[in-house]
Amino acid sequence: MTPTDRQFRGEKDGEYAGDRNHNRRLTRNRRGLPQAPGPCGAEQRLKDLGIELPAPPRPFVTYVEAAQTGNLLFLTGTLPTENRDAKFIGRVGVELDAEAGSQAAHLARLNALAVAREHLGTLDRVTRIVRLGVSEATAGDVRDQPRVADGASELLQEIFGKDKNPCRLVYGVASLPLGVPVELELIFEVAE
Amino acid sequence: MTPTDRQFRGEKDGEYAGDRNHNRRLTRNRRGLPQAPGPCGAEQRLKDLGIELPAPPRPFVTYVEAAQTGNLLFLTGTLPTENRDAKFIGRVGVELDAEAGSQAAHLARLNALAVAREHLGTLDRVTRIVRLGVSEATAGDVRDQPRVADGASELLQEIFGKDKNPCRLVYGVASLPLGVPVELELIFEVAE
Amino acid sequence: MTPTDRQFRGEKDGEYAGDRNHNRRLTRNRRGLPQAPGPCGAEQRLKDLGIELPAPPRPFVTYVEAAQTGNLLFLTGTLPTENRDAKFIGRVGVELDAEAGSQAAHLARLNALAVAREHLGTLDRVTRIVRLGVSEATAGDVRDQPRVADGASELLQEIFGKDKNPCRLVYGVASLPLGVPVELELIFEVAE
Repeated sequence: MTPTDRQFRGEKDGEYAGDRNHNRRLTRNRRGLPQAPGPCGAEQRLKDLGIELPAPPRPFVTYVEAAQTGNLLFLTGTLPTENRDAKFIGRVGVELDAEAGSQAAHLARLNALAVAREHLGTLDRVTRIVRLGVSEATAGDVRDQPRVADGASELLQEIFGKDKNPCRLVYGVASLPLGVPVELELIFEVAE
Repeated sequence: MTPTDRQFRGEKDGEYAGDRNHNRRLTRNRRGLPQAPGPCGAEQRLKDLGIELPAPPRPFVTYVEAAQTGNLLFLTGTLPTENRDAKFIGRVGVELDAEAGSQAAHLARLNALAVAREHLGTLDRVTRIVRLGVSEATAGDVRDQPRVADGASELLQEIFGKDKNPCRLVYGVASLPLGVPVELELIFEVAE
Repeated sequence: MTPTDRQFRGEKDGEYAGDRNHNRRLTRNRRGLPQAPGPCGAEQRLKDLGIELPAPPRPFVTYVEAAQTGNLLFLTGTLPTENRDAKFIGRVGVELDAEAGSQAAHLARLNALAVAREHLGTLDRVTRIVRLGVSEATAGDVRDQPRVADGASELLQEIFGKDKNPCRLVYGVASLPLGVPVELELIFEVAE
């Protein structure tokens, strides 16, 4: 049985119960903070999926790519960039088609994971994805923003597992930095 | 003296002092985490106000409706939906009038409370509403987004009491999932 | 020289290393919470820079300007207002030029700092700026939202120091309350 099979069995039950029990279930250290899970973690899943993360985006001078407070890790909004250059420019449904939008979102996701790994040393320290925000540049009467967001959600679930799924915010914004079509917001819960 | 009278007495003083003292005032357990207030809590207020919460929105496969980390509860952006269907479609001031916008916001609020109750078991475990975000789909020169947001703020204050009032972010966005006019962001502080 | 080598030399390296060590570096009290830094803090820097903060924006009835939970302080979205009146109205690049946009952002920054000081008593209690969000009202194909955001980031770095730099989210939104061109989101980590 593949992980995907397991993951779709008893979907709704597991989802809420799992979430409600999240705090109770975590192994905790003496200070009551969550600890990293065992060896079959996100890094192994990345390898199994054949995903190589890019070099993380470099922060500019006056802000950082990731800021940790206690066991929460907040990320700078990640864009579909390579070496600070936008690889996709335009709004989905206006200058870009859906396929380009999906590719842009995928690049932003990899950038986000690269930032988290650089900050944490290893993605195995992620004990929960707390929140995923997806902002898409749109114009006019657009209703299918969740489609691009779904791609982001699916990849995170494949890597971190269903019990670490985040809550989610999806917006259609008017424009994004550098003219890119999508920006991700991420908050992680991490082990010490 | 009505609740409203009390609430407007010494409004500004009470507001800040209350907030500054919030951490000090909370009953805390041995681990220093806040504990739920006494019996006259949010659930009783809901009954007094005659408000029945709808069935909470079902999460889709790859995200959850509520994610808790420590004593912070983050909610998925809540929409004016029923059984995953948008009950209001359009932008306030364009396709929808102000009255429809207010009704849409009210439905989104009830959905948010239904999600929080399902996750927590009871809304009495809410020790503070940390942040309320209100995003409205707008077009052109719109300036009165706070009016719809005020409805959300007022209901929360009626249910949870003035000393749990959140800070607030209000945005006019270009579009929202399913074409709805309003999306709410909520972060709660909750007792163990 | 590998990317990793480069990254640990000079300025960029300091940035990441600094951030990774943030939790370790903080002086902590018995409950493990961060404590305020020594005397050469943000208040002294404000004086050195000759910056006087305005009277903080007054909250309206149903929300507060700052909500603290544990050692996180969330601020209401701050606008370029004085006494609840918008001092700048319009979108940058449409009704307002870049210079007016920068001035508006500066006023919003001062308002945010005034709120934080009122809540905390002194800005020296800020141990980290966790997140800065900058939302600008835009129309059409706008790509340089980060320029206005940079002003906000630079001032915060001047006042709080490089090791407290936040992560950052920048959006172009469709409209903002009162018709203002910019709204700031801020989350601070604060000492008890």
